[in-house]
Amino acid sequence: MASSIDELDTPIVLVDQSVVERNLSRMAQKARQHGMALVPHAKTHKSPHWARRQLDYGSPRIMVSKLGEASVLLEAGIAEQFIGYPLVGAIKAAQLTSLMSQGLHPVVAVDSQAGVDLLAECTRATGQPIAALVEVDTGFGRCGLSADADVVALARYAVDAGVGYQGITCFGGHITWRHEPDRIAQLVAAEGQRLAACAAALAGADLPASVVSEGGTVIAGYMDAVTAATEMRPGIYIYNDVGTVVAGAAGWDDCGAVVWTTVVSTPSADRAVIDAGSKSLSVDGPIRNSFGYIRERPDLHISFLSEEHGVVVRDGGGPTGLMIGQRLTVIPNHVCTMINLHDEVAVHADGLVVARLAVAMRGAVR
Amino acid sequence: MASSIDELDTPIVLVDQSVVERNLSRMAQKARQHGMALVPHAKTHKSPHWARRQLDYGSPRIMVSKLGEASVLLEAGIAEQFIGYPLVGAIKAAQLTSLMSQGLHPVVAVDSQAGVDLLAECTRATGQPIAALVEVDTGFGRCGLSADADVVALARYAVDAGVGYQGITCFGGHITWRHEPDRIAQLVAAEGQRLAACAAALAGADLPASVVSEGGTVIAGYMDAVTAATEMRPGIYIYNDVGTVVAGAAGWDDCGAVVWTTVVSTPSADRAVIDAGSKSLSVDGPIRNSFGYIRERPDLHISFLSEEHGVVVRDGGGPTGLMIGQRLTVIPNHVCTMINLHDEVAVHADGLVVARLAVAMRGAVR
Repeated sequence: MASSIDELDTPIVLVDQSVVERNLSRMAQKARQHGMALVPHAKTHKSPHWARRQLDYGSPRIMVSKLGEASVLLEAGIAEQFIGYPLVGAIKAAQLTSLMSQGLHPVVAVDSQAGVDLLAECTRATGQPIAALVEVDTGFGRCGLSADADVVALARYAVDAGVGYQGITCFGGHITWRHEPDRIAQLVAAEGQRLAACAAALAGADLPASVVSEGGTVIAGYMDAVTAATEMRPGIYIYNDVGTVVAGAAGWDDCGAVVWTTVVSTPSADRAVIDAGSKSLSVDGPIRNSFGYIRERPDLHISFLSEEHGVVVRDGGGPTGLMIGQRLTVIPNHVCTMINLHDEVAVHADGLVVARLAVAMRGAVR
Repeated sequence: MASSIDELDTPIVLVDQSVVERNLSRMAQKARQHGMALVPHAKTHKSPHWARRQLDYGSPRIMVSKLGEASVLLEAGIAEQFIGYPLVGAIKAAQLTSLMSQGLHPVVAVDSQAGVDLLAECTRATGQPIAALVEVDTGFGRCGLSADADVVALARYAVDAGVGYQGITCFGGHITWRHEPDRIAQLVAAEGQRLAACAAALAGADLPASVVSEGGTVIAGYMDAVTAATEMRPGIYIYNDVGTVVAGAAGWDDCGAVVWTTVVSTPSADRAVIDAGSKSLSVDGPIRNSFGYIRERPDLHISFLSEEHGVVVRDGGGPTGLMIGQRLTVIPNHVCTMINLHDEVAVHADGLVVARLAVAMRGAVR
């Protein structure tokens, strides 16, 4: 039963069980050290199996974005969830009502009156309270309100609507590997100050935030600067990737999900083609000129991807030394988008396959 | 049963039936005009349903890349296939042998002796001939042999190995929307000359190429320059996308597969967020500064994507005028990678949903 990874057809995602368990344990410890709740984002693994392990490590709930993801986790028996995505409209109201009637206990992010209205409607329909966190934009420029006055106003609107306002949430998506570690530390510190100021404004308006939620594996590496936060929501930390390593939040040995590939063509000495392209690795990046980090051969890089091909060349040119049939391990640039391309992963312990795990939340875009 | 697209939850892929049928008909006519076989690449639609329609329009076979895709088409009763991907190693040999014993009639691309050896092995195992096309690199720098002498040598190696050598194949993947139409015409002409020279070298070595296969929807718009080709292998033409439009190979009205999205957040007047991100649209691009073309509002563009969010701004800045709940149609930059993210598409006729079609070949990376 426990076959070697060498016997697997490629390309396939390999998950190193011991690396994953170590990553889960370390982040749980980090959250405890900072006195914060750890609410892991399931978008990275998209698997009820790993969500359960994250709960085992002490997390109070799991974060998802879309209700389709919430539904998969709920079916797997995970009722405590943070839905960190703006829910608006009649279709989403009906879906959330249905999930709540099946047992879902949601905390939900909101950044508009339309979002609050939906939560109020679901509360009336189910008779169950919904905890709401108002989303604050801390500089990413995606969702969330920028002005403290707007945050206070929406919190008050939620309270008046009978929605269970609990505090604020944010996502510092602008704090990434694109910056040097020194700059990341500055940006995290600025986010920490922003959250503290917003929490103070809410307290001053008699709307104290009992929850101040922020997230991100990269930010988690610099948490001392975010004293206002009560919970952290990293996702990537379970697997890590080139982005978290380059940002200084992990090392190569902490990368627990890789794409196992085979060289299928060596049309010239200075070029090889592997059987993993954008359909296996995703086209996030390039980071440092490569669409993934080749573990066995850091002197090589993936110069471009088409859907089923990765073209591998040597840094600075010259013979790659690769042979047809040779296998290579590619650490993805962005592990979340990579995992989303695969129906399953092969979990291994020291190179022996111990499980094939469905990526059950994959493709849940609604 | 036939509900309006307005009743659909978003994000979802909408396929316009009449646009698709027109695209299929036009390309079939173009191939006939040029006296070429049309071997459509299934990577775009990933659906046995549309593959069957392509056969209905006169194609002799369907192109796939991976054997996992070949397997899905074969199960759907489509035995005539071109596998345009280097197959190497014992696992692939066993898979191809198995598919052939189940009725597959493959034509296969090869660019190495290892690839020929695999075909010889499968021929011996099944007692069935396999047609082989030697892959020529016409400038893309991916798979394929560059020197005519190498092409001739591999063709001879195939004949000596008892493999059914039939000619040559290539993929001009360097000929894209990144170039202006004039430059595309030049590049196509160069590819045509390269194929003619290679075919002449083979004929001179008593290895005449009865098949000269080339492909690409962009190239198909400039086919007069490729007189040596006997068959064309476009894929994207069934749906089209921003890339084919920008390259001059299609118009916006020829784009038959779009992502139907909803505005879920308007945190400021000059920014809106739609519910389609890189998990729904793919991160191919940007093209012309946008991660997709917003059909209803060409004055807007998608400035960045995260996994579940698309951030929409106005060209040059200013109020977007978008409201929460409003729906928008996004033509994807690269329709193949977009379709690969979805389990199904909703086929509609004039806004009425007529079918939900599984993307049955999605995720078949092996």
